[in-house]
Amino acid sequence: MSRSEGLLARLRDGLPAEALLTDPDVTASYANDMASFCPAGTPAVVVLPRSVEQVQHVMRVATELGVPVVPQGARTGLSGGANASEGCVVLSLVKMDRILEINPVDRIAVVEPGVINATLSRAVNEHGLHYPPDPSSWEMCTIGGNIGTASGGLCCVKYGVTAEYVLGLDVVLADGRLMSTGRRTAKGVAGYDLTRLFVGSEGSLGIVVGATLALKPQPPQQLVLAAEFASARAACDAICAIMEAGHLPSLLELMDRTTVKAVNDLANMGLPETTEALLMCAFDTADPAADLAAVGALCEAAGATQVVPADDAAESELLLQARRLALNALEAVKGTTMIDDVCVPRSRLGDLLEGIERIAEEHKLTIGVCAHAGDGNTHPTVCFDAGDPDESRRARESFDAIMGLGLELGGTITGEHGVGVLKKEWLARELGPVGLEMQRRIKEVFDPLGILNPGKLF
Amino acid sequence: MSRSEGLLARLRDGLPAEALLTDPDVTASYANDMASFCPAGTPAVVVLPRSVEQVQHVMRVATELGVPVVPQGARTGLSGGANASEGCVVLSLVKMDRILEINPVDRIAVVEPGVINATLSRAVNEHGLHYPPDPSSWEMCTIGGNIGTASGGLCCVKYGVTAEYVLGLDVVLADGRLMSTGRRTAKGVAGYDLTRLFVGSEGSLGIVVGATLALKPQPPQQLVLAAEFASARAACDAICAIMEAGHLPSLLELMDRTTVKAVNDLANMGLPETTEALLMCAFDTADPAADLAAVGALCEAAGATQVVPADDAAESELLLQARRLALNALEAVKGTTMIDDVCVPRSRLGDLLEGIERIAEEHKLTIGVCAHAGDGNTHPTVCFDAGDPDESRRARESFDAIMGLGLELGGTITGEHGVGVLKKEWLARELGPVGLEMQRRIKEVFDPLGILNPGKLF
Repeated sequence: MSRSEGLLARLRDGLPAEALLTDPDVTASYANDMASFCPAGTPAVVVLPRSVEQVQHVMRVATELGVPVVPQGARTGLSGGANASEGCVVLSLVKMDRILEINPVDRIAVVEPGVINATLSRAVNEHGLHYPPDPSSWEMCTIGGNIGTASGGLCCVKYGVTAEYVLGLDVVLADGRLMSTGRRTAKGVAGYDLTRLFVGSEGSLGIVVGATLALKPQPPQQLVLAAEFASARAACDAICAIMEAGHLPSLLELMDRTTVKAVNDLANMGLPETTEALLMCAFDTADPAADLAAVGALCEAAGATQVVPADDAAESELLLQARRLALNALEAVKGTTMIDDVCVPRSRLGDLLEGIERIAEEHKLTIGVCAHAGDGNTHPTVCFDAGDPDESRRARESFDAIMGLGLELGGTITGEHGVGVLKKEWLARELGPVGLEMQRRIKEVFDPLGILNPGKLF
Repeated sequence: MSRSEGLLARLRDGLPAEALLTDPDVTASYANDMASFCPAGTPAVVVLPRSVEQVQHVMRVATELGVPVVPQGARTGLSGGANASEGCVVLSLVKMDRILEINPVDRIAVVEPGVINATLSRAVNEHGLHYPPDPSSWEMCTIGGNIGTASGGLCCVKYGVTAEYVLGLDVVLADGRLMSTGRRTAKGVAGYDLTRLFVGSEGSLGIVVGATLALKPQPPQQLVLAAEFASARAACDAICAIMEAGHLPSLLELMDRTTVKAVNDLANMGLPETTEALLMCAFDTADPAADLAAVGALCEAAGATQVVPADDAAESELLLQARRLALNALEAVKGTTMIDDVCVPRSRLGDLLEGIERIAEEHKLTIGVCAHAGDGNTHPTVCFDAGDPDESRRARESFDAIMGLGLELGGTITGEHGVGVLKKEWLARELGPVGLEMQRRIKEVFDPLGILNPGKLF
């Protein structure tokens, strides 16, 4: 019996037949997430468990045989964090997709990891509640995947990232034991915060099989304003002025000239070609029109050439469409994109955008930037022809140059996409030798055999 | 040369004379924080460093000689977490008290650990900013101590606890190496969240020597409402109704009959003796009077016998005075108090309060409860005569009964005070064997010799 046959036989001991995918054509389709430039191996098998016990069985077998396990959600990640290792068990949690509880008094939801973000968001809406984290992939991505990468989204400038909504977790450890972390309560400080340690750990410490999430009351419908600027620097000045004045926008996004042009070309939206930067700001406060008027005045003071506040939800939605199309539009420019995720203190956003323009010129590349600008979190997106080896090489090099610039400006190499395989060497640079050593030693505590999503992060 | 003389000689190598306290009368005064029933040893020496390098020197010497180190802030803790071990170095961070930066655009402050909470709060106010965490001891306690115990306060129902405001840390490890965690940016997911691991770790993983804190814009002045109820259950029903209706109060506090009576006796505040529970609710929204009117109606629907909304800041302050006096008033009842810190899902608050009444009767004790009710976080406070051994024994037993009840109701043994020495055995019960084992192994990663605040937490 080959090694792979032995693995399958042991897995079958505790799993129904339909939980195992072994057809190589099928399993190969589970090899990658949505990141560019990230190598992936060939899975030995894909397991689709439906219960905690089945996950525990998989991990016991993996520990017994020393086989790597790669946990996956919807594979919408952008750093290769869900890419298969050679000969691994892909552990796809998408069938564990029940919402077990929604409690409006305690403002919590208890869910399995495979619940789609949008499904949960809509379900809690029906109880007058709001689950804020809204990554762009929210119609596809799973809560488990969001927890794995500590996902962000458009709402973070007011509502923060996924990490701030995870109160407690059920985790299957590498050896198959079940551990519960955290709490159902609003507060709690009993011992080290292992919940937060697992959020953003990219499946490298254990398998999240359940989560207790904090919810907010549903806010009023947000109202959006768009402002055009003749330079990226002026738009960034406006952002700094808005935040310095104490505003709490529910969204504060920026698209640079390249992105605006790409959206115009794709969707013929009638955005003026003279726009060098487009800022979008929204409020979901009691009187959003008043807040937008104040922000509009700050934009004009910073040199906005046009300020367009929406009058109602429909107009707001129209303004946001341009932002939603940004990544597709940039992909249409040259066929392939590489999306970065550098976050700097928002006071340095202007320096970052000007630096990225310089890097694009130096590398003779088209780089569009859309940004969760209120957070200083940018997605510089290199548009290139993957069939052109020289352009591909320059794209890769520009990517490194941008991360280097981000660190120089006091930023981080990843605001919300995670490290995966894409940014491993950069993680070491950001953490420094002491931080890296302590992180590796924590990994060893939870995964002494190194079977949990090996080759990611470090 | 004795062991103690050897320690002092090595410490003097890297510290100025004024940084060392060795007079036994003086060092003895550093033995305890403010918890009852917590044993403490006698410090060998108290060190008051003024720089990161001095802290590093202390930790290098402690590692070299295997001497325990107990980090301290203002010693206002309530779980014995800052109590000295026998023969330890007390490392008091109170002289490292500089505010290094306040940045209104990035909404961050960079501070040393010895800064007093109120000093920071007032300093950021001058920039139109707000540092929400407000433990009752905020005029005395330090930010480093707040980080060590992940402190809460009155604001948490809207603004969350200290943990949510710590973006990055500088930490001196057990062996004297300096590690930086986290970031200055609004978002960041580069590697495991070691920042959050340190928050609430009670000085058992390393010495926090610097912190980057998130700030909020200063909210409008809050307006307070007081509501009287004829039973604790009715007050808890009101709390559930307020939260279920989607309100976001900036404060939602509860005092039970015993506490109301104690405050009346102490300060002659004219609170009606018929009051079985007093609820206080505040809003710092754009239109707090409207929010208070809505909440007042919910209180009446739940059976409030009187609802008193304040008209302005001065009246609000007057209403809050009763709450602020609660702990002092309970201490005046019998001379000594033991303050617990059990947190349950807010939907179980009524069950907890009725259970505590039962426990008080069974143990023939006076137990007053004041609670951060919006969070389900109660402070059952046993009033007893420390000179009466039988009453002291019953006080200790009731304390255990209350924690057991809290866990039964799906709660935690500590919402905001931490574990220290007071709740060590209860931590094991809350975490379970797997969780406890993983927590201990994380401790070993950072503190292989077991010299950092030994005997706390586990």
